[in-house]
Amino acid sequence: MASVSIDTINPKVLKCEYAVCGEIANIAQRLQQELQAKPDSKTFDEIVYCNIGNPQSLGQLPITFFREVLALCDHPIILDKSATQGLFSADAIGRARQILDQIPGRATGAYSHCQGIKGLRDTIAAGIEARDGFPVYPHDIFLTDGVSPAVHMIMQLLISSEKDGILCPIPQYPLYSASIALHGGSLVPYYLDEATGWGLEVSELKKQLEDAKSKGITVRAFVVINPGNPAGQVLSEDNQREIVEFCKQEGLVLLADEVYQENIYVPEKKFHSFKKISRSMGYGEDDVSLVSFQSVSKGYYGECGKRGGFMEVTGFGADLREQMYKVASVNSCSNIAGQILASLVMSPPKVGDESYESYCAERDGILSSLARRAKILEDAFNKLEGVSCNKAEGAMYLFPRIHFPEKAIKAAEAEKTAADAFYCRRLLNATGIVVVPGSGFGQVPGTWHIRCSILPQEEKIPAVVSRLTDFHKSFMDEFRD
Amino acid sequence: MASVSIDTINPKVLKCEYAVCGEIANIAQRLQQELQAKPDSKTFDEIVYCNIGNPQSLGQLPITFFREVLALCDHPIILDKSATQGLFSADAIGRARQILDQIPGRATGAYSHCQGIKGLRDTIAAGIEARDGFPVYPHDIFLTDGVSPAVHMIMQLLISSEKDGILCPIPQYPLYSASIALHGGSLVPYYLDEATGWGLEVSELKKQLEDAKSKGITVRAFVVINPGNPAGQVLSEDNQREIVEFCKQEGLVLLADEVYQENIYVPEKKFHSFKKISRSMGYGEDDVSLVSFQSVSKGYYGECGKRGGFMEVTGFGADLREQMYKVASVNSCSNIAGQILASLVMSPPKVGDESYESYCAERDGILSSLARRAKILEDAFNKLEGVSCNKAEGAMYLFPRIHFPEKAIKAAEAEKTAADAFYCRRLLNATGIVVVPGSGFGQVPGTWHIRCSILPQEEKIPAVVSRLTDFHKSFMDEFRD
Repeated sequence: MASVSIDTINPKVLKCEYAVCGEIANIAQRLQQELQAKPDSKTFDEIVYCNIGNPQSLGQLPITFFREVLALCDHPIILDKSATQGLFSADAIGRARQILDQIPGRATGAYSHCQGIKGLRDTIAAGIEARDGFPVYPHDIFLTDGVSPAVHMIMQLLISSEKDGILCPIPQYPLYSASIALHGGSLVPYYLDEATGWGLEVSELKKQLEDAKSKGITVRAFVVINPGNPAGQVLSEDNQREIVEFCKQEGLVLLADEVYQENIYVPEKKFHSFKKISRSMGYGEDDVSLVSFQSVSKGYYGECGKRGGFMEVTGFGADLREQMYKVASVNSCSNIAGQILASLVMSPPKVGDESYESYCAERDGILSSLARRAKILEDAFNKLEGVSCNKAEGAMYLFPRIHFPEKAIKAAEAEKTAADAFYCRRLLNATGIVVVPGSGFGQVPGTWHIRCSILPQEEKIPAVVSRLTDFHKSFMDEFRD
Repeated sequence: MASVSIDTINPKVLKCEYAVCGEIANIAQRLQQELQAKPDSKTFDEIVYCNIGNPQSLGQLPITFFREVLALCDHPIILDKSATQGLFSADAIGRARQILDQIPGRATGAYSHCQGIKGLRDTIAAGIEARDGFPVYPHDIFLTDGVSPAVHMIMQLLISSEKDGILCPIPQYPLYSASIALHGGSLVPYYLDEATGWGLEVSELKKQLEDAKSKGITVRAFVVINPGNPAGQVLSEDNQREIVEFCKQEGLVLLADEVYQENIYVPEKKFHSFKKISRSMGYGEDDVSLVSFQSVSKGYYGECGKRGGFMEVTGFGADLREQMYKVASVNSCSNIAGQILASLVMSPPKVGDESYESYCAERDGILSSLARRAKILEDAFNKLEGVSCNKAEGAMYLFPRIHFPEKAIKAAEAEKTAADAFYCRRLLNATGIVVVPGSGFGQVPGTWHIRCSILPQEEKIPAVVSRLTDFHKSFMDEFRD
């Protein structure tokens, strides 16, 4: 007797989609296995994963200081041995001691407070305060295993049924659409305007909000991703103020995905947290409910495998906080190494510390290289026939628009697939380059995009550009109307 | 405008309960702060957390070999330095190299395959195979951040509405009741029989299943915790076979919580996985759907803070596996250190390895001490007036029954609380010992229990026993009818 079948499982699971690891990524894995088995079986010699923001998988090195501290906290017994001083920097040893002192019983193998170790939350709070210039309270911080569980926790709290809506940008990072689907809510889209560099218009927000209301949907929250994923835009302060005002007026929880806060590549833009914007407008706890997400996976650190992240939750009443605490406690706590790393990225070495100079060199090397790579890839896309690509002001991706010839769209339809997915599959099979179709992020109907990360190591970028350019030319030659 | 309030949030969140970190734990935290501020303010000098299975928080040391490997994988750059050989054992260095070779690009800071690094799943599969003597396939393994997310993933898959039921033991570890509540399903209880050492009767299962059916509930799965939490029983092989047969006949997914598989303290009982039992009955993929959960948080390792765990999923069709893969991919992957540790606990040092003897000494020291502590506490409970306590054959807890005098029950009612919660609060305030009321796990109505871990360090056990005994005597003196 079959005990579980696709017909009886939760339909919300069936509805959930996550293109970043979808069909194209599966084909890539298969090709990689084929390449390993038969290195000469393809016209390319490696798979280049531009589908996902996973810097260290493409060769980015971790920040030495962070890893030193993690290793010492994993195995504190060596802190007292003299050989350790030859292997680890003095400030890493000092920091590890300081962190261990903040952990009850110095036990990095114990469950912590379910929101995270208090001393580490103190450090994170101080780091946010130094960044923003407004007070931060450690009890507002919830440390989580990367940002995904934090987003799920908030969606679980806010969504009771499909009558609960969440305003999400289109295009959006599909964690949001996936989480909304899994929790049975309704994604209420607002479209970013590609023509104005993926600008955000409050009139569009109001229109979509009214439209949702007319369908009986109560919009509970507003998602903003800044710097933007997948489109790489960085919001202006004016735009941020408009958003805060809109959320306040409409009574929406503002969910601010700020995981790319360190990834800004243009001198004319700066990162401003929504917390800072909101406080600088004079709004406090009683005015706006705001959740800000930060992760150790992005920035210059790119420590995706460590699963560290946190959210700062403000403007939620004590009774709601109690509910969040309870739900967090069901999962005991997030992993301690991720917690430690989250405290480190919010409190890196300072002037005078032994590691300060090497830390700065590593950080600046990564960020300046990312800026160069973003520019080279942007220029390359803009040189392709029928392709236009906005600047990646921040984050880790480009989201070029491709104007496909009718013939290509028809060919895709014949294969029962969207034109952008058709293009991505062709690109992968011809070059080994993995990108994600725009349909996985949402796009204005009738437009087509791809998301391509800027993360291949710099010395590989020319080859990526040349393979991409050659492929695109032959694709257009085949399908040009 | 208040944007989010307790009246508008998801009622499933409100319904969820998790007593392990509930009211008693909150009081304990407050008392601890008071003690820190004023060390002489209480009649006790420390809080003893017997409410949660968190060994290292109470002083249990980590297994050295495991931590050596983790530290080296966190900071692989030191592998090639000669000083490292003075600080780390040779087999830890070898194992770290071997693990790094299994990770694409040796990048412990990259997202892995969403089910976990393939090489580590190979190691885990081999470990289960060596334990059970039946084949294990790496694609059946899903590595997760501890077991909680794995349980949530399965509940999310199986539960569409309150018409979907999950058969759960009573008493049960409240992760299950919490997860069922969060996913909107119905917990269908089956009662363990305290009189026969928390035995499990198939007639009881059938009765509860029929009862659920008559209420329009479709039971989807059967949860078994072996060794048992909170009651510490270890199932007999005969009993396990009956359970497998029952699940097969009734078409239920068998969810086997086997996280205490290393924690067995009586020579007459052995751990047998449900996978092994099922395969030894001749049942394969098409006969029984089975999920087995294992964690790095329990056993002799007790690495709760690392958040490592996995499930082995068998008897699920390819289409269902695809859905599980998709949901796992939304969260990218579990933390790599937890993944590495999960592979280590399933493949510890072997005869001939440099660390083998010290590893065995550490492991056996912990397990034999836990066995002694279990016995001492069991005897102590059984000496208390009106208390009867079954043997802790395994796991990390005792679940003694307390026959409260009517007067105590009335006094509790006057404080609008259950008698067991009343007792726990009194115990905590008088002694600093934190235990969890049986009502948090479920119990036969009219009976009262507490769950008390066996985890305080051995040298502290006499003091725990004496404080507990004194408290109980004065409690009974106050309330004896």
